Amino acid sequence: MNIVIERTALLRSLGHVQSVVERRNTIPILSNVLLSIKNGELALAATDMDLEIVETVPASVTRPGSTTAPAHTLYDIVRKLPDGSQVEMEVSGDGHQLTLRSGRSQFKLGCLPPDDFPQISRGELQHSFQLPAADLRALIDRTRFAISTEETRYYLNGIYLHAAKVRAGGAELPVLRAVATDGHRLAKVEIPLPDGADGVPGVIIPRKTVNEIRKLIDEAADRIEISMSENKIRFAFDTVIVTSKLIDGTFPDYERVIPTGNDKVMEVDAKVFAAAVDRVATISTEKSRAVKLSVKRGNLTLSATSPESGSATEELEVAYEDTPIEIGFNSRYLLDITQQIEGEGARFLLADAASPTIIRDVADSTALYVLMPMRV
Amino acid sequence: MNIVIERTALLRSLGHVQSVVERRNTIPILSNVLLSIKNGELALAATDMDLEIVETVPASVTRPGSTTAPAHTLYDIVRKLPDGSQVEMEVSGDGHQLTLRSGRSQFKLGCLPPDDFPQISRGELQHSFQLPAADLRALIDRTRFAISTEETRYYLNGIYLHAAKVRAGGAELPVLRAVATDGHRLAKVEIPLPDGADGVPGVIIPRKTVNEIRKLIDEAADRIEISMSENKIRFAFDTVIVTSKLIDGTFPDYERVIPTGNDKVMEVDAKVFAAAVDRVATISTEKSRAVKLSVKRGNLTLSATSPESGSATEELEVAYEDTPIEIGFNSRYLLDITQQIEGEGARFLLADAASPTIIRDVADSTALYVLMPMRV
Repeated sequence: MNIVIERTALLRSLGHVQSVVERRNTIPILSNVLLSIKNGELALAATDMDLEIVETVPASVTRPGSTTAPAHTLYDIVRKLPDGSQVEMEVSGDGHQLTLRSGRSQFKLGCLPPDDFPQISRGELQHSFQLPAADLRALIDRTRFAISTEETRYYLNGIYLHAAKVRAGGAELPVLRAVATDGHRLAKVEIPLPDGADGVPGVIIPRKTVNEIRKLIDEAADRIEISMSENKIRFAFDTVIVTSKLIDGTFPDYERVIPTGNDKVMEVDAKVFAAAVDRVATISTEKSRAVKLSVKRGNLTLSATSPESGSATEELEVAYEDTPIEIGFNSRYLLDITQQIEGEGARFLLADAASPTIIRDVADSTALYVLMPMRV
Repeated sequence: MNIVIERTALLRSLGHVQSVVERRNTIPILSNVLLSIKNGELALAATDMDLEIVETVPASVTRPGSTTAPAHTLYDIVRKLPDGSQVEMEVSGDGHQLTLRSGRSQFKLGCLPPDDFPQISRGELQHSFQLPAADLRALIDRTRFAISTEETRYYLNGIYLHAAKVRAGGAELPVLRAVATDGHRLAKVEIPLPDGADGVPGVIIPRKTVNEIRKLIDEAADRIEISMSENKIRFAFDTVIVTSKLIDGTFPDYERVIPTGNDKVMEVDAKVFAAAVDRVATISTEKSRAVKLSVKRGNLTLSATSPESGSATEELEVAYEDTPIEIGFNSRYLLDITQQIEGEGARFLLADAASPTIIRDVADSTALYVLMPMRV
């Protein structure tokens, strides 16, 4: 292999692929990026055995071939090369060494044989559809904060993506829905079902895949193609393809935990509320982070106390017409949710101090959040 | 005590003083900031028993008095208050509680009696002089990277500030000189001796004091007043006074380690050199960080090898007319020094591969760096 490639394009792609490579690997080749020539372009691939990313970059190819080289080292080198430089990469005759040249710099890196590089992306994925980048961003941003980190409940360590139906007027509309929960809070958001997505299986996309995809969306073109089977999902961006295994488990029946009888309605300015919760929570203990909401006609008092620090209270005007109620929440969870509300208003649907509360964006009915209270 | 104060001014001062307060304290009152009224202004003081900072802020005083309250909590609260707000602080009758009000927020914080707050700033400091903020910044920036972190050599854990004389032409000029060393490298920089600084004792300013002072310089007025005795130093900014104990030890006779016979002169573009060292060092092992310099007439080759990663070389044009020499350095130390060189040129004065090397800024003779080589 002997190619010349622009530093800027190479850096961008290495940035994407090295992010998938774990810092510590028991299998040495997993620290490497696979470099190969496909259709006159350079393809870079990296994997952690669960997640694979492949990206193609234009290159001027003198001699085709392939190799694998240490991903993080290669990224660091290219990052430190001057802006605007050209990078030549050549694999020596016996394939054990990659020589990288740029200007008057020269680097020699040890290689591992490309045939040993694991491939997880083979195999057909039956279901395939496209959706706008903004829709995928919304599905991720409004749910991923609720993904569980408890490894024992592995089936909650991802976003549950599936087709569903919602009643609108008299009709049933098909939607693509994303749900995440850690048992303390639940986030649910949906978009109209994209063409070709009927009959897609319900899948649980692992957290690491969600986070890598999220990073790529901001640089993505308008539309992203998703393909999936029972155990794999693939996201195709312009020049990047991410293939991931799915979490092999059953997502719980989340509909059952969404209360339907919450009839006490409080509406509040989401930004004012979030700022007040953040202030009052300064006083709550590091461990519980508890904040109490005392709601009465037209008025909400937020309060927190801690044996070490003291106490805090703040009053807000709210729209509330029902009987007074006091309820406690983890302030971190309240902020996670209210920060996802893009409109001005947040609507709380309350039942009593021991029951789950629903929070919605007044201006956007596609997202719904459920939050468990805590005793205060 | 009952005062009203602007949030912006209070935040700025709390930012300064809370930085001195350690996160963990065995003596509870050291977590607190002392609030007291002096000449109609609010004085805030914090200390770790070695270093004390006092700052005054305009306040509208309804009832004078004093108290101490948790510094980090107070800072967090004020930081989260809306920009432009007014903050009322009131100490309750028995002095055990500080109530802070702003808008519709209210916080109650536990207090400790102001009389228990330790004072380290008492006592006269005989020597006193002023110097421009830019001079103090130069003295700190060009030496502090070389301060030792080895606690066993506590007398190297600071900057040695003292009066000295330099020969210029036939005359001897008095200077104020700062020196720091960790045994691997030494940094020495001097400014003309300020009026009133003759006869100042040589003092070792602890690292934490150096770092706090450095943060304050950027916001400082033109001139800073320094007072000192054998065991204390005081820096007076506009509204901030920092008093620090000095390191009670003897700084080594650093002049002896500055070689005088290095006659091989290499001049190099400092920025080009630093970028090349940074690139080549990508390959050097995490532990040694070694980079080899091979110098011959007009040409410098930087190189690094590591058993895991491979090898790197880069060539630079340099001004060098002497016999070829190979010498190794810790790349981190080379970068620390060359990043302090403000002019274009760095001048290396070399002897041989086992002897200390001198590095100077071609455009500025006030700073001198000594770097020990390492075997490569």
